[in-house]
Amino acid sequence: MRPVARPVSGHFSVDVMTAWLDAVAHRLGTENADLRNARGQVLAEDIRAARSIPPLDRAALDGFAVRADASLGAGAYNPLELLAVAVAAGDDLPEGMDAVVPVDRTEANSPGRIVVVEPVAPGDNVELQGATAPAGAALVPAGMRLAARHLGMLAQAGLTRLPVIRRPRVRLRLVKPAQPDGWTDSNGPMILAAIERDGGVVDEPIAVGRSQVAIRDALVNVDSDLVLVAGGTGPGIDDHSAAALAEGGELAIHGVALRPGETTGFGRTGDGVPVVLLPGTPAACLWSYELFAGRAIRRLGGRDPGLPYRSREMTVARKIVSAIGMTEICPVRCGAGDAVAPLPSFAETGLMAAVAADGFVIVPEASEGYPQGARVTVYLYEGS
Amino acid sequence: MRPVARPVSGHFSVDVMTAWLDAVAHRLGTENADLRNARGQVLAEDIRAARSIPPLDRAALDGFAVRADASLGAGAYNPLELLAVAVAAGDDLPEGMDAVVPVDRTEANSPGRIVVVEPVAPGDNVELQGATAPAGAALVPAGMRLAARHLGMLAQAGLTRLPVIRRPRVRLRLVKPAQPDGWTDSNGPMILAAIERDGGVVDEPIAVGRSQVAIRDALVNVDSDLVLVAGGTGPGIDDHSAAALAEGGELAIHGVALRPGETTGFGRTGDGVPVVLLPGTPAACLWSYELFAGRAIRRLGGRDPGLPYRSREMTVARKIVSAIGMTEICPVRCGAGDAVAPLPSFAETGLMAAVAADGFVIVPEASEGYPQGARVTVYLYEGS
Repeated sequence: MRPVARPVSGHFSVDVMTAWLDAVAHRLGTENADLRNARGQVLAEDIRAARSIPPLDRAALDGFAVRADASLGAGAYNPLELLAVAVAAGDDLPEGMDAVVPVDRTEANSPGRIVVVEPVAPGDNVELQGATAPAGAALVPAGMRLAARHLGMLAQAGLTRLPVIRRPRVRLRLVKPAQPDGWTDSNGPMILAAIERDGGVVDEPIAVGRSQVAIRDALVNVDSDLVLVAGGTGPGIDDHSAAALAEGGELAIHGVALRPGETTGFGRTGDGVPVVLLPGTPAACLWSYELFAGRAIRRLGGRDPGLPYRSREMTVARKIVSAIGMTEICPVRCGAGDAVAPLPSFAETGLMAAVAADGFVIVPEASEGYPQGARVTVYLYEGS
Repeated sequence: MRPVARPVSGHFSVDVMTAWLDAVAHRLGTENADLRNARGQVLAEDIRAARSIPPLDRAALDGFAVRADASLGAGAYNPLELLAVAVAAGDDLPEGMDAVVPVDRTEANSPGRIVVVEPVAPGDNVELQGATAPAGAALVPAGMRLAARHLGMLAQAGLTRLPVIRRPRVRLRLVKPAQPDGWTDSNGPMILAAIERDGGVVDEPIAVGRSQVAIRDALVNVDSDLVLVAGGTGPGIDDHSAAALAEGGELAIHGVALRPGETTGFGRTGDGVPVVLLPGTPAACLWSYELFAGRAIRRLGGRDPGLPYRSREMTVARKIVSAIGMTEICPVRCGAGDAVAPLPSFAETGLMAAVAADGFVIVPEASEGYPQGARVTVYLYEGS
């Protein structure tokens, strides 16, 4: 792919951009994490049980361990006294015992003895050795994002440290606007939060001057896995991000058929670290992140690379219009049943469109939108 | 409700327990959070725009600001030269200008002038004052869990600190087993991870001895919003959690018709802080947390109190059996289409049931389960 300099106007399709990105953003290596800090991390290797869980037969509840065969013939008219050992749930079964009589089903008759009025079967109220997992059994597979239940299971298996995929380190640089007086940066906290959501580790973003030199300097000595530069991607005379990347490394692609997000760029630093140039306009910055930068971070970290939103098929209640030749993100609101209707676009209301929406529809490049009654895939924001 | 001492065997329904819990766990107060650290926090107040966004008309893209009426009559055969000011996307529109000609649609003819070959309409490529939000407009409502897009919008509105609901502080105490040699605690990391998921703040859990005195001591000087004690809730002679709570404060309920989780207890410390006694058996501990303790934390923190899993109606492919009189959590695996089938129960395989499952079905107390072909609500683990 030849670098495309200005003007930038969506030469490349979202699919081409995605393919380029997927070719440069590979799953990172493994590191060991303390099990107590591993929530949300991605397991790097299959974990198997080193020994049986439980390691021996044990009491499943509080009661008295007995030999089942000694209870043969017990009944209401034939109470039998058995040798018994008081056990708590989880205690190993004493040698020679093979069943547990619940504490509320009997009484200790004399020390070390109980009376039963019904027979006990071997294994009653016993958690057999290996019942949770026999030695060697698969516990949690590689690729799993660790949740509370996995951590409990792996702790029970005796692990205290876990092999996890290293979290991607991201450098975030914000190009100051041409008129920086009274500048309120909204891209920094927004993208920071999205990087954290996607499992990346990011330092405080640093604002850089709106010059080719300043931006190029932000692309050297990179100890991160990905560099994001927000702003300065347009065709204006003050826009130098693409030129700075071309000078300092490689500008692979500039300009995507994505709305919002047309001026997105991709490339590599001189050291080969992938770079995504995010547009400075907040809504465009958000969507360029969601579709491209976020995808790269999710891939690096071993997560599902898809958009981190659940999706659902819904019915268009009012037509959704989109320009042909551009992939367009359309904010939508859900109505009764499975109805969905468009909201004013990102071009009209900026970030407010994302805040007001219940979710969004991605209208592909080849489509002019969807008529009323069409079925569409809707990505839903949490809580919608 | 009278305290119920041992034996405990599910005297109270899950609904009664939930109602008790909801009556004591109220939304906490408000604190101010740095916007940059507010991801996932719950907004405590409606936020409105203090001023219009954008505050003035501004350029929507890079180009030249012009007066639209000066372009009247322009055409391919009647190119017109206009007074123009170069602007970058986001720049305020210069005084007297009301439209922007994109940089790639014209050329600077001479300093301060461009040539156009078509008329320009007022407002073309201009982001009008208040287009994102007029002054006073609602931006983000109270109760919203803040995601990247909200933080971007609120930063754009000029906020740097946000009123959020204080995160619940949770004290977690683990009762050591009767045989603590070689004890591998799995409840600590599991519940710690679940508390974090639900927005609670928790210190390192502390293990306490299996005595009434030690457990009672864990219930004093509580500076938390909720106390969780895991273990020692059963009817055995070594189980003292319920007695310790009754002695040190109030034991309101002990014993729930929940499987796993029958020995769950509820009450308050002497200072009135809600206490949940979690069973020590890992699977019972998990489910008692999910249904009760987690619900309390989610309520305290202003989140949706429901289970933090998405749910879906599915069709039973192989019958799901449950004991009548007990609410039972049944681990399930999803098949083709919307088919769902039971896995071996928590009683049989412990925590492994949660790790092996795609999700779970909650069979209510009054039900014996579901026959093949029945429609059931399935709670799905992420990624399933």
